[in-house]
Amino acid sequence: MAHTYGIILFDGFELLDVFGPAEAFGMVKHFDAATRLLMITHDGEPATSAQGPRVLADASFANCPPLDLVLLPGGIGTREGVADDAQKAFLRDRAASTGLMTTVCTGSAVFAAAGLLDGRRATSNKRSWQWVIAQGSGVEWVPEARWVADGKYLTSAGVSAGIDMALAAIAELEGATTAERIAAAMEYEWHRDPAWDPFAKLNGLV
Amino acid sequence: MAHTYGIILFDGFELLDVFGPAEAFGMVKHFDAATRLLMITHDGEPATSAQGPRVLADASFANCPPLDLVLLPGGIGTREGVADDAQKAFLRDRAASTGLMTTVCTGSAVFAAAGLLDGRRATSNKRSWQWVIAQGSGVEWVPEARWVADGKYLTSAGVSAGIDMALAAIAELEGATTAERIAAAMEYEWHRDPAWDPFAKLNGLV
Repeated sequence: MAHTYGIILFDGFELLDVFGPAEAFGMVKHFDAATRLLMITHDGEPATSAQGPRVLADASFANCPPLDLVLLPGGIGTREGVADDAQKAFLRDRAASTGLMTTVCTGSAVFAAAGLLDGRRATSNKRSWQWVIAQGSGVEWVPEARWVADGKYLTSAGVSAGIDMALAAIAELEGATTAERIAAAMEYEWHRDPAWDPFAKLNGLV
Repeated sequence: MAHTYGIILFDGFELLDVFGPAEAFGMVKHFDAATRLLMITHDGEPATSAQGPRVLADASFANCPPLDLVLLPGGIGTREGVADDAQKAFLRDRAASTGLMTTVCTGSAVFAAAGLLDGRRATSNKRSWQWVIAQGSGVEWVPEARWVADGKYLTSAGVSAGIDMALAAIAELEGATTAERIAAAMEYEWHRDPAWDPFAKLNGLV
């Protein structure tokens, strides 16, 4: 069965948080042409990234089809995202029916604010750590991690860490061989150890 | 003086070829708010990536302002790009006035087809190597390289290699300290050695 990967965009999303994983998810099409990759905004209108470039949407919260994976990126827009009731409601609704719920960078702050990570282990960007952990007092925050898997929830560290997490998600949905082939096609040195994290120390978190 | 970074999009561009470097270029704004990052398409209309997501343009070939850096991504769209006279003319025109001319992945095949790399050292994607080198018999193609710098021309290997090359370009335009800070903010382990390339061997090129 082909899978549908959905990435949620909002104004102020971080470019690489989205397009590192999107590159990897998009390559799954080479192994199963029926794979779908959808960019989702709340109203189906384009979103403007934190860095400026603007991206068109394939679906809105209202017309988004069933998904096998949800990815929420980080970026300065998550500062509003933690108070965005419509987005949090959409995330809670999809969490009930989606196989893998994933975040990159400060996206985990929004998952936490939505109550999705209560009682779970999770990580986030290491520069914005204090702000992130304040969004979820019931979360077991892990400061030293490239990504953390807890059940269906995969949360990654900052920006480029999303690529490593996305490959782990692909390994889970499509098999390890497919993930390895995609990393090779991306000419990407996949950090396969979720505990690899020199940036926790760099930012004084360990 | 703030710099203007321009990235050329076309239908079938590879997502990470564009948005790995765009993330890094966009972060230069944190050090100089007047830095500009422009997405350019031939007609100013949106471009559809090889993976599906669609990106809006900030400028067209006709109204694009002066640039300090040009980046041409790779992707399946370069198969048409090598025969796209309008795009090749734009590249030749900009090469005369732009400080750094850069490519990611099979983007170097288009630079070669435009005659920009004659007599120069260059590299490209390691999977599409034979097709790429056939686009420029006057180029000194380097099979084992993460990226190659020859004068104002920086050409990178496949997909994720663009991030390493982009950081090298930032080091040249903004200074090494700014490039290092951006890599750390991206939580990215920058491969600073342009000769690092396990993918040449993986693809039987050495």
